[in-house]
Amino acid sequence: MFLNINTKKLNPYKVASHKVWNIKNKDTILKLDWNESTIPPSPLVKKAILEYTETGFFNWYPNVDNNVLREKLAGYSGVNVSNIEYFSSSDGLHEYIIRTFLNEDDSILLISPTYDNFRAVAESLGVKTEHFRLNKDEGYSFNIKALMDNISTVKPKALYLCNPNNPTGNSYSKEEIILLSETFSDVLFIVDEAYFEFNGVTVADLVNSFSNILICRTFSKAFGLASMRFGYAISSTENITGLQKVKNPKSVSAIAQISALAALDDLAYVYNYVEEVKKSKVIFISELQKRNIKVLQSTCGNFVFVDFGLNCVDIINDLENNNVFIRYYGHILGAENMVRITVGTIKQMQLFLDILDSILICYND
Amino acid sequence: MFLNINTKKLNPYKVASHKVWNIKNKDTILKLDWNESTIPPSPLVKKAILEYTETGFFNWYPNVDNNVLREKLAGYSGVNVSNIEYFSSSDGLHEYIIRTFLNEDDSILLISPTYDNFRAVAESLGVKTEHFRLNKDEGYSFNIKALMDNISTVKPKALYLCNPNNPTGNSYSKEEIILLSETFSDVLFIVDEAYFEFNGVTVADLVNSFSNILICRTFSKAFGLASMRFGYAISSTENITGLQKVKNPKSVSAIAQISALAALDDLAYVYNYVEEVKKSKVIFISELQKRNIKVLQSTCGNFVFVDFGLNCVDIINDLENNNVFIRYYGHILGAENMVRITVGTIKQMQLFLDILDSILICYND
Repeated sequence: MFLNINTKKLNPYKVASHKVWNIKNKDTILKLDWNESTIPPSPLVKKAILEYTETGFFNWYPNVDNNVLREKLAGYSGVNVSNIEYFSSSDGLHEYIIRTFLNEDDSILLISPTYDNFRAVAESLGVKTEHFRLNKDEGYSFNIKALMDNISTVKPKALYLCNPNNPTGNSYSKEEIILLSETFSDVLFIVDEAYFEFNGVTVADLVNSFSNILICRTFSKAFGLASMRFGYAISSTENITGLQKVKNPKSVSAIAQISALAALDDLAYVYNYVEEVKKSKVIFISELQKRNIKVLQSTCGNFVFVDFGLNCVDIINDLENNNVFIRYYGHILGAENMVRITVGTIKQMQLFLDILDSILICYND
Repeated sequence: MFLNINTKKLNPYKVASHKVWNIKNKDTILKLDWNESTIPPSPLVKKAILEYTETGFFNWYPNVDNNVLREKLAGYSGVNVSNIEYFSSSDGLHEYIIRTFLNEDDSILLISPTYDNFRAVAESLGVKTEHFRLNKDEGYSFNIKALMDNISTVKPKALYLCNPNNPTGNSYSKEEIILLSETFSDVLFIVDEAYFEFNGVTVADLVNSFSNILICRTFSKAFGLASMRFGYAISSTENITGLQKVKNPKSVSAIAQISALAALDDLAYVYNYVEEVKKSKVIFISELQKRNIKVLQSTCGNFVFVDFGLNCVDIINDLENNNVFIRYYGHILGAENMVRITVGTIKQMQLFLDILDSILICYND
């Protein structure tokens, strides 16, 4: 009876299988369902947490104004410290973006299928969502002219663009984003660069030229810190100041701050992992194709988007029975029979293929 | 240019001094400004974190549906598991409460002065805030008849009531909250029980009889886990289901979940600390009075609200120069010359008094 109108009609952001947390021996799990890093973060993170556990103050609120952290993030991103603010994950940042920049009944446009959290947060706050759809029968390819026509028609207040896109893996070029930002200067372009480390394409250097570009980043992917909840925004000083006005200053835990700082001190570790994933992805795609499994070619993140055919639900279940987890997308409009598989190390993907083969044999019998 | 109307006119939630985080040798600090626990959490927390650091998966997202944790919270609170949901702090819960139950342009009533975060979140989401003021010249005493008249006039959608109230320390009785909930059955009573461990007054047992009671709790006070960001809601199953629809399921970090579970396994530790603080508070109030410092008598939390007189800003500065931190309230309407001092152990408060005396001597010279 007390729920407000937006909550009553909300279609929530749904998360996938929870089974991994109920499995006792977690070392037997191959977790390829949430696009996390498949290896631990830099050893410096563990070292920093152990030190904090001995000498830190768990009973104190976290630092509410960690400028050392902002400076390191700014250095990593190649922007000024006034262009950066950190949040408790990019999901948390999505909430603050809507609350800072959108009014109820404003419209936003999403390039779909895409990461669903932004849509859910927007709708929960009464913001209307429109979708510019990438189509399976066109290989989810992107046509900028069609998008620009759509923006002119919908006249959204903001556009959410995940680059590279999750789950389709395709990437928008810097030139395309510049063209969009120049043409539609009153539209806020929210560029989610959650996976940017895997293709290196970023528009971070444009935020002081284009006040209508706002970038979301996370430490949950290449940095291997999904458990910690840490992300950050890059935008014009004015936009960042607006976000800081709305942000709860106590919202980022002390251990998340400490872990992020430690991870930023070992970028070589991240770059090595990214290179391993890139190599692994090339081999993995080729191996899938050998098995006559259709893979989207434009896979710029640490994942592949795959057409597993009619048996995909059965295959996923059989994999889960072997403690192997991948992500089903068949319930998403325009993604029939599609699954998304996180790409880890070469060794991990070979293990995945071995288990997959043992399952596929039964289907072919 | 891109900020929305609510953000443009927002008066943000301001946090106090950040100086402690810049002090190198933190063991010399007496932090009595944020009502944190003044001692570390149970040793079981450290043990659990060390174990997680060795065997856990930092690279995985946190458990998005931790029912073991819900069950333990339900057991601690004396309610059913369907009456409980956990959040990344009670501040985080405030955000989800507004988003789940309030519409833009709804009005809420706050009993003021009070903890300011709820006001800031409400206003940032376009909710109108009205204040029922407790007055300094009446010792911030509470008159339920006057509040009920005010509710009838304002007709708020919700009322925010911090019990015991921060910073005034006064407590609302269970009978008073029942009377309010019965009389105004269409008003949602948001009862913030952040400090309830220190006076033992709760309305948790009423949530299945009164669907208009929603309780906020935190692990940042008696449980000594402010750095972690962990809190929870207690309400009717229907209200909890509504909050779960809006809540981001990944928002509570793995280490916060693990720490909360460990802390709940050592309630004796929390109860011992609470008893120590209660004894310490009696002695501390008496010592302040010996020094002719006016203290509000009804101090039901782990803090006292004190009239430090005209020199209060100078005294606070002098204390800070000795690495002692207390909270200035003089800038808050109706709290001229008031300061709030967190009460810690007997030994810590004696140290505070020794340092205070060394400062006051200079003023009396």
